[in-house]
Amino acid sequence: MLGLMQEWPLTVDRILDHAAKNFSHREVVTRNVESGQLTRTTYEAIWKRAKQVTNALQGHGVRLGDRVATLAWNTERHMEVWYGAMGMGAVLHTVNPRLFPEQIAWIINHAEDQILFFDTTFAPIVDKIAPLLTTVKTYVSLTDRDHAPKLNSTHVVAFEDFIAGQPYDARWGGFDENTACGLCYTSGTTGDPKGVLYSHRSNVIHAMAANQTDCFGAGANDVVLPVVPMFHANAWAIAFVAPMCGAKLVMPGAKLDGQSVYELLEGEKVTFTAAVPTVWLMLLNYMQENKLKLSTLKRVAIGGSAVPERVLRAFEQDYGVEVIHAWGMTEMSPIGTIGKLLPEHYASDEESQIKAKLKQGRALFTVDMKIVDDEGREKPHDGKAFGRLLVRGPAVARSYFKNAGAKNERGECLEACGFFDTGDVATLDELGIMQITDRAKDVIKSGGEWISSIDIENIAVGAEGVANAAVIGVAHPKWDERPLLIIEPKPGAQPTKEQLLAFLDGKIAKWWMPDDVVLTEKIPLGATGKINKLALRETFKDYRLPSTQAAE
Amino acid sequence: MLGLMQEWPLTVDRILDHAAKNFSHREVVTRNVESGQLTRTTYEAIWKRAKQVTNALQGHGVRLGDRVATLAWNTERHMEVWYGAMGMGAVLHTVNPRLFPEQIAWIINHAEDQILFFDTTFAPIVDKIAPLLTTVKTYVSLTDRDHAPKLNSTHVVAFEDFIAGQPYDARWGGFDENTACGLCYTSGTTGDPKGVLYSHRSNVIHAMAANQTDCFGAGANDVVLPVVPMFHANAWAIAFVAPMCGAKLVMPGAKLDGQSVYELLEGEKVTFTAAVPTVWLMLLNYMQENKLKLSTLKRVAIGGSAVPERVLRAFEQDYGVEVIHAWGMTEMSPIGTIGKLLPEHYASDEESQIKAKLKQGRALFTVDMKIVDDEGREKPHDGKAFGRLLVRGPAVARSYFKNAGAKNERGECLEACGFFDTGDVATLDELGIMQITDRAKDVIKSGGEWISSIDIENIAVGAEGVANAAVIGVAHPKWDERPLLIIEPKPGAQPTKEQLLAFLDGKIAKWWMPDDVVLTEKIPLGATGKINKLALRETFKDYRLPSTQAAE
Repeated sequence: MLGLMQEWPLTVDRILDHAAKNFSHREVVTRNVESGQLTRTTYEAIWKRAKQVTNALQGHGVRLGDRVATLAWNTERHMEVWYGAMGMGAVLHTVNPRLFPEQIAWIINHAEDQILFFDTTFAPIVDKIAPLLTTVKTYVSLTDRDHAPKLNSTHVVAFEDFIAGQPYDARWGGFDENTACGLCYTSGTTGDPKGVLYSHRSNVIHAMAANQTDCFGAGANDVVLPVVPMFHANAWAIAFVAPMCGAKLVMPGAKLDGQSVYELLEGEKVTFTAAVPTVWLMLLNYMQENKLKLSTLKRVAIGGSAVPERVLRAFEQDYGVEVIHAWGMTEMSPIGTIGKLLPEHYASDEESQIKAKLKQGRALFTVDMKIVDDEGREKPHDGKAFGRLLVRGPAVARSYFKNAGAKNERGECLEACGFFDTGDVATLDELGIMQITDRAKDVIKSGGEWISSIDIENIAVGAEGVANAAVIGVAHPKWDERPLLIIEPKPGAQPTKEQLLAFLDGKIAKWWMPDDVVLTEKIPLGATGKINKLALRETFKDYRLPSTQAAE
Repeated sequence: MLGLMQEWPLTVDRILDHAAKNFSHREVVTRNVESGQLTRTTYEAIWKRAKQVTNALQGHGVRLGDRVATLAWNTERHMEVWYGAMGMGAVLHTVNPRLFPEQIAWIINHAEDQILFFDTTFAPIVDKIAPLLTTVKTYVSLTDRDHAPKLNSTHVVAFEDFIAGQPYDARWGGFDENTACGLCYTSGTTGDPKGVLYSHRSNVIHAMAANQTDCFGAGANDVVLPVVPMFHANAWAIAFVAPMCGAKLVMPGAKLDGQSVYELLEGEKVTFTAAVPTVWLMLLNYMQENKLKLSTLKRVAIGGSAVPERVLRAFEQDYGVEVIHAWGMTEMSPIGTIGKLLPEHYASDEESQIKAKLKQGRALFTVDMKIVDDEGREKPHDGKAFGRLLVRGPAVARSYFKNAGAKNERGECLEACGFFDTGDVATLDELGIMQITDRAKDVIKSGGEWISSIDIENIAVGAEGVANAAVIGVAHPKWDERPLLIIEPKPGAQPTKEQLLAFLDGKIAKWWMPDDVVLTEKIPLGATGKINKLALRETFKDYRLPSTQAAE
């Protein structure tokens, strides 16, 4: 027997409809990409212009399910394209401009994007890739005619000309809530980028979950500054959350440096903001250098990579701003867990609270998590045992666009037993707080048990004379793998194997002790500053541990 | 093209699963119905016992879609039956014990309930109606064997015996999210009660909407006391909201008087509570008489009827507790609007804020509202024009159980143009704040224009010598209807027609002026204390206005 409630598909056009109707005059402030000056508009105006975008898209032949790409900063025009495309059932494909031009071209071709909207700052990229693009028919520069760039390789339309004269009315929604809505590619360390295809339903449910009080908790009296870009997993849902709750929205455009962000925070009286740690390091440095304070900011969401302790302490202890440590993945829409403390934490001392906040946090409602061993058996929630982190929920990907990477590195389907394998290894403690301990592929598997490379590295970097430390698994005839400790010494230092192992002794389990230590001039780092373990594994793939000889 | 996200039906079992997994030790405190003492349990324990309920129900032949009734206070056992029934796809039918026994019997027979769970306080009702019930096979008293009542008319099983020995594991969910989940009857002033059949989807979406920061805004650090009963439209979603967010839950059992509620608020450190105005009047009187303060309460949701100004002022000004004025209907799951103020209100003075808070509030996301005239044309949002209030959303009823009352009083389908007609007449102001001005059937239709009976009454009660005032429409040959003012004088007073009309003059539009005034000894009131207009219209149905004679 079915319930007798109304049909009201969860489509994202309803979010902007709600804002235009209930918060029509609420401001959306943007730092203009060309001038750096602030422009001001409202949800009602964005709604009207988004309807114009819909009409213009349809005039250019875009239909339900067609992909439309943006190469753009957070601006009011990006919001207009966002809702104008999604509202009619086209798929808004946010492209990350930080990728190599060849990757961008590959992604746009793979997505078969019909139209490319781009900010003027990205004109050089577009000029370079246009000859490579096989499906894009129209290039729209997100500006007016005076500022639109002229490119050698292709004709460019100014956004204001693109929508000029279009009616303020267009039909939105009216399709199945599972209709594709957004597309975002994620690039791993190996293989081609893979597209995550969000649905209207997943975006609406995720936004409602992400804005619960214990997560972002924004309301109509908040002023929200998403420094995290819309091309970075939907600006962590904020492009949906802010109009849903009627918050004033502040869009930073192209300027994410400390001074620019500070000016927006103070000038627009921002109460809630979100970005990756790098942005906050720039802001904190700027404020410290100029002896500045924050007068309105209450909460800052930090994700993308783990919150550094000094960033946490600076915000909470020096500036009185609550840090919300968030963890997620593009495949999770993206928020999976949130570091909001529980009554049990508040009952303990401040240092314990800081420690708890450095973990990745607890699952939102609509996110199921578990940690399992290689056979899929659940590991205990004791904060010590670690296992592969599997997740499930209405806003978690079940496969990639065009079935790319449908199997994981072990040849299993992405959605084995209904869960998505995050590729991370994590612990869960008694309170349900999750902590990432390693990437699954970096875990060392010794005699059927797992050794966390990151745990050993974190201790080893504390040893005298060590600039950086990496641990990788090296093949072993008896144990499958055993850990090899690779040390980059500080200039002039020359720590010995005996000194280093003595330093580790007592700090890690006996059977975690590296079988050997090698010194290297420079430990290779990836683009994001993390240790490039792939390169290390390649370098040391034929390395023979002393214990191997003994075992043979 | 569909998105590629996981299937994860929105079923309410996931809510208690989430609580048991993430907030396993969070307390649920109940004032025991028999002893009045407090008992303590946890979400994990409730989850286990709810699984036992599922197994026991299935053992009694209850299957997907079957109805299970409760006649029960807010207690931990009611929660166990609630989730035990809903989890397996049975329909939890909460019966309002405040109805007449014959109505209760009618409702249970109409719903075809298979099992009736009841609190010991309702044993006399059950004893009386059991012989009338045609479908109930098993009567379960929500207590242990020692406290279970012996009834003359039927055999009774104690709840603890009902679940004893049942396994802690049972399959929940796994069905379509549109599956029926809950049933609640609403009784108008005329006709048989009508059943609202909630779906799993509507309950989950509504709970996520109702717990946004600008609505209830509860989190894991809150302690939530739903004084509003679960049989009153799902305790306004709190039976879903609290486990969803991990709040500690305090259940008041049978004692809703001022002293009992105060003891729970202070003793359990409650931060958020919800109930109808009557409950708060009792609490405020008790606190004033005993010169007591509230030390932990932060927010109080008030709904069911309009918040009286003195309740609002007492909470906000005397006790420092934020009042959340909520409006809704059983047919809306029930929350429709919420009186959370906007930045525009906070920019004005305190008295304007009080005035704004006395209105019914603004629509939640997932609730669309409009006001229309009899031809369905939208009325302006100026805070003055009023029209029939129509609503729409995923948690709004599209029809009643067994298609009862499928047409409204004008013979139109319930869901004309996709909206539900609330039967209320309301204004919407520039900020989207709604105010109920009348029941649609009480509005006086004069020459195609509408006159609000309540507006005139609210002014007339201020005239000298007036104890109570009512305004009804009386048939008129030229204008269709014209207003008749009916006055209940204060003891010994004898206000004249001339005095009363002179008092109204200048306070209402000329054409709203009543055509006549009659004095009556006692204006009839309904069960809830509201004026019984149906009785008045019956009494005065042949009343001839002086203007009628003039027009003839």
